[in-house]
Amino acid sequence: MSHYAPPLRDLRFVLHELLDLPEQMRTVGRDDLDAESIDQVLAGAGAFAAEVAAPLNASGDAQGCSMPEPGVVTTPAGFRDAYRKFAADGWTGLACDPEHGGQGLPDTINNAAFEMLCGANMGWSAYAGMSHAAYTCLKANGTAAQKSLYLPRIASGEWAGTMCLTEPHCGTDLGLLRTKAVPQDDGTYRITGTKIFISGGEQDFTDNIVHLVLARLPDAPAGVKGISLFVVPKFLPDADDATGERNAVVCGSIEEKLGLHGNSTCTMNFDGAIGWLLGEPNKGLAGMFVMMNHARLIVGVNAIGLMEAAYQRALVYAKDRAQGRSNSPARNGAPADPIVQHADVRRMLLTQKSYVEGCRAFAMWTTMLADQQHGQTDPDLRAETAALLALATPVVKSLSSDLAVESINLAVQCFGGHGYIRDTGIEQYLRDARIIPLYEGANGIQAMDLLGRKVLGDNGRSLGLLLREMRGFIERHRSTAEMQEFTAPLTELADSVEALTRSIAERAGRDADEVGAAAVPYLRLVGHLALAWMWARMAAVALSRHNASDETIYASKLATARFFYARLLPETKGLSAAIASGAGPLMKPELELL
Amino acid sequence: MSHYAPPLRDLRFVLHELLDLPEQMRTVGRDDLDAESIDQVLAGAGAFAAEVAAPLNASGDAQGCSMPEPGVVTTPAGFRDAYRKFAADGWTGLACDPEHGGQGLPDTINNAAFEMLCGANMGWSAYAGMSHAAYTCLKANGTAAQKSLYLPRIASGEWAGTMCLTEPHCGTDLGLLRTKAVPQDDGTYRITGTKIFISGGEQDFTDNIVHLVLARLPDAPAGVKGISLFVVPKFLPDADDATGERNAVVCGSIEEKLGLHGNSTCTMNFDGAIGWLLGEPNKGLAGMFVMMNHARLIVGVNAIGLMEAAYQRALVYAKDRAQGRSNSPARNGAPADPIVQHADVRRMLLTQKSYVEGCRAFAMWTTMLADQQHGQTDPDLRAETAALLALATPVVKSLSSDLAVESINLAVQCFGGHGYIRDTGIEQYLRDARIIPLYEGANGIQAMDLLGRKVLGDNGRSLGLLLREMRGFIERHRSTAEMQEFTAPLTELADSVEALTRSIAERAGRDADEVGAAAVPYLRLVGHLALAWMWARMAAVALSRHNASDETIYASKLATARFFYARLLPETKGLSAAIASGAGPLMKPELELL
Repeated sequence: MSHYAPPLRDLRFVLHELLDLPEQMRTVGRDDLDAESIDQVLAGAGAFAAEVAAPLNASGDAQGCSMPEPGVVTTPAGFRDAYRKFAADGWTGLACDPEHGGQGLPDTINNAAFEMLCGANMGWSAYAGMSHAAYTCLKANGTAAQKSLYLPRIASGEWAGTMCLTEPHCGTDLGLLRTKAVPQDDGTYRITGTKIFISGGEQDFTDNIVHLVLARLPDAPAGVKGISLFVVPKFLPDADDATGERNAVVCGSIEEKLGLHGNSTCTMNFDGAIGWLLGEPNKGLAGMFVMMNHARLIVGVNAIGLMEAAYQRALVYAKDRAQGRSNSPARNGAPADPIVQHADVRRMLLTQKSYVEGCRAFAMWTTMLADQQHGQTDPDLRAETAALLALATPVVKSLSSDLAVESINLAVQCFGGHGYIRDTGIEQYLRDARIIPLYEGANGIQAMDLLGRKVLGDNGRSLGLLLREMRGFIERHRSTAEMQEFTAPLTELADSVEALTRSIAERAGRDADEVGAAAVPYLRLVGHLALAWMWARMAAVALSRHNASDETIYASKLATARFFYARLLPETKGLSAAIASGAGPLMKPELELL
Repeated sequence: MSHYAPPLRDLRFVLHELLDLPEQMRTVGRDDLDAESIDQVLAGAGAFAAEVAAPLNASGDAQGCSMPEPGVVTTPAGFRDAYRKFAADGWTGLACDPEHGGQGLPDTINNAAFEMLCGANMGWSAYAGMSHAAYTCLKANGTAAQKSLYLPRIASGEWAGTMCLTEPHCGTDLGLLRTKAVPQDDGTYRITGTKIFISGGEQDFTDNIVHLVLARLPDAPAGVKGISLFVVPKFLPDADDATGERNAVVCGSIEEKLGLHGNSTCTMNFDGAIGWLLGEPNKGLAGMFVMMNHARLIVGVNAIGLMEAAYQRALVYAKDRAQGRSNSPARNGAPADPIVQHADVRRMLLTQKSYVEGCRAFAMWTTMLADQQHGQTDPDLRAETAALLALATPVVKSLSSDLAVESINLAVQCFGGHGYIRDTGIEQYLRDARIIPLYEGANGIQAMDLLGRKVLGDNGRSLGLLLREMRGFIERHRSTAEMQEFTAPLTELADSVEALTRSIAERAGRDADEVGAAAVPYLRLVGHLALAWMWARMAAVALSRHNASDETIYASKLATARFFYARLLPETKGLSAAIASGAGPLMKPELELL
């Protein structure tokens, strides 16, 4: 039995009632999307998540991946068949270009589908997620020949892709990387080095695995300006572009991890492996970043999927488990009431609901920017969309993943001591989720990216665009009395973030450590502003409909928005005060005082 | 090699320089304690922790406990020998009565020792901790014959004790429990029922295991007023009080858990097992609560041990791992700086340090109240100490355990992707720590106990005593200019907590759900007040000494106090605002809206 119910109604609320995705896409010249076909796709993805992926979640965690012989990885029972069905049903190509056999749907729809797959089974879904990230990178950087060789095969799911960045001594600081690429007379390169933490670096699903590898050319400058990107397939394509000879890239070991056991995390040894340059020499990092930004949205969405799944479990448990008398006992003669009637359990449940639905709305809004950007012809508008997307991406990644860990922690707490037991199934979400604040750029790095590069780096212009969006929304609801409970605090918070940003900018001009000192709480503050905006927007939709409909979702949205504003938004007061205290308390202490 | 360094210097700071334990104990008639002998005991415990317990931590986690045949539990390799050495060296009896062969040291010293043992190896230490809790319960409730039979054997470590409360359908709500006790003609009882989550319910260390079991007599009233306490040994004492016939209590299974793998968590089946009544019929819950309060302090101290251990690992890693250039690069020609030089890594490290040292000071202050209470002859003073102890106990348990999970989460984050890997060793602390907010009364229950019973239940008198202590401290430092940066915000926070408490009391009079709605953030708020008080007190000690000494600890305490006030205390602003919003946002939504 699957424990996972695809949140199709909420996704429809977000995509249609909140964002109006088909109409928004029409404004950028794409008029082939309608609500009904979007819903059919999502219903299909939801069914796959619930019926195929979810039943393999606990068993995949328990079995994990293994290496029966050197270089060979066995994934948990059922994973391969599920992946092949997934590919055969066309899901690997959902957002791929029709030119490569894909269905060409927007990333917004793909990410909505991916949220459900991850909620059902993150370990399994991460193979598909990483492969699609590699598709994106190859598409952005490949020559016509490279694209025609690799992209159709990755889109079809026959082949998979990986991203090989991290080395034992460098993760965040890729400038330190040592893997070498030596050019050969035939135009290929010989790649030698060790890469670690390679998700899906080896598996037993696909006929070939296409590694995208960061390495240095012999004459490359030191640091990040000397990094190039290479494509290194596990099996070299033969004359007919089919899989030929085995390349000298081998999985050396798989990591024992806190969670995500269904996904193989590999050390990959490149021992003079044959590779081809992807994009320009020494421009590898920029080429990779196209994919990285895309991947950051995907992992944010992944976090949302886990939050949703854990919330569902906690809610079911809280309705079933009877302990203690509530203050409004159910008059059914039972000796105890379901714990969902206790105020503190409601606090925990509504916190989870506020975070998951708020993060979902903001992640979908952000992904829609990525989709809109492709079609925008007006260069100013396109630049604005790009700026908003760049600003929002680290927030989606970090906020969603931090809140996922916190939210799932609350879900575990709802189970009491039973939450600590494997059989209950809830603790797996905590273990699986904990990787997300760490990978695809640790959350501290995301926060530096947000504050240092995206906000201060363009003198606040991108932030100004976001605030303009929010203030436009507030202005449109100025005359709606029922909206004041949301728009008044939203206005106040937007003003306060703006003022605080100016003061950080001023201090950062004198001391660069002010950026690092403020970054993480600043991201959380902006993240809460984003959630407050989304909850106000969702409340506005709900207010406009709940009298005309008996669907509970509208009353639910209003109640959750009120909870968010009353109980969760106040955290921003503390964040602002902590940020205002500046870098001194962090940086002054000498090293030996720590 | 042990990764654990016993925090002996900080414990000396707390016990002597902050609390002056020997002098405080002298005021209640105990004049046999001096700083030097306390330090010798702690040094011995620290050495045991680092040299015997710590080396078994990772291996104990990896191996876990197993059941080679029904009813038999094998603990991880080395655990039994370590326990027997622990007993032989006299550590099991450290805080036991000399009458029972113990050393009669105060709980404060025992808990300080226990913090180090848990920091070194929680799974192993929990056997000793649970056994000592059973000792406390037997001592408080047993007849002279029961005490002389059981207590010397538990104090010596030959026998162990357990607490059997939880059943499959009831944990928090013990009123629902079903285990039956049928009186026999010989004065014994036959106990029948199933108990779950019994820590150390079966193990391979001791000659006997003494289960303290909550059960119902045939004529018992329903609910919590019909619960009695029984002592049910695994082996029945024979005519010479040695271990005789096997009793009908058997471990049916051990739980697979998120962490704490070294400790056996057992389902215990009582099948007409022979037991003896402990204390009065139907007063079992009160008898058990003597132990529960003691156990709550112990698990709080346990959480502090894990925080300390994880902080130590994160600090070592942050000084070693070089990634990126800091804004004040070490001029050693290396291509990257240790990450400890980055502002955000310092934020994470100083947060951990603030929490662990603040929680340690408050837990030791609270445990000292328990020790002082025993010797107080003046009934008013004794009642005041008891009230302060009762108020502080749920704060020590919940605050320390919540902050341990958060703090260890930050320690994991300091490791980047490596934090997710088993080999690094840091993720074990997260898994082990996660049980503490759940057991010995889930943290939500502790918060209800604090606000409902301890604060509102006596119309704020206990809280008034705590505030009087704080205001006395503030008053004593009124003329110290250097202390104003601490005493001013402390004064403000104390006033604000007092006012907020009055307003909760007023609302709770109209709607009982106001208590549950406020409880958890209220405990965190009072907890931060307690930490602020402790950090101000530690700063005062440091200010009085750091000019006269080059020991870094004084400068370190001052710097950490400043960090705490600047960066962590502001959280209270958000907590207060969330509490002030009341129960409405939690309780109004109908069930189907969740």
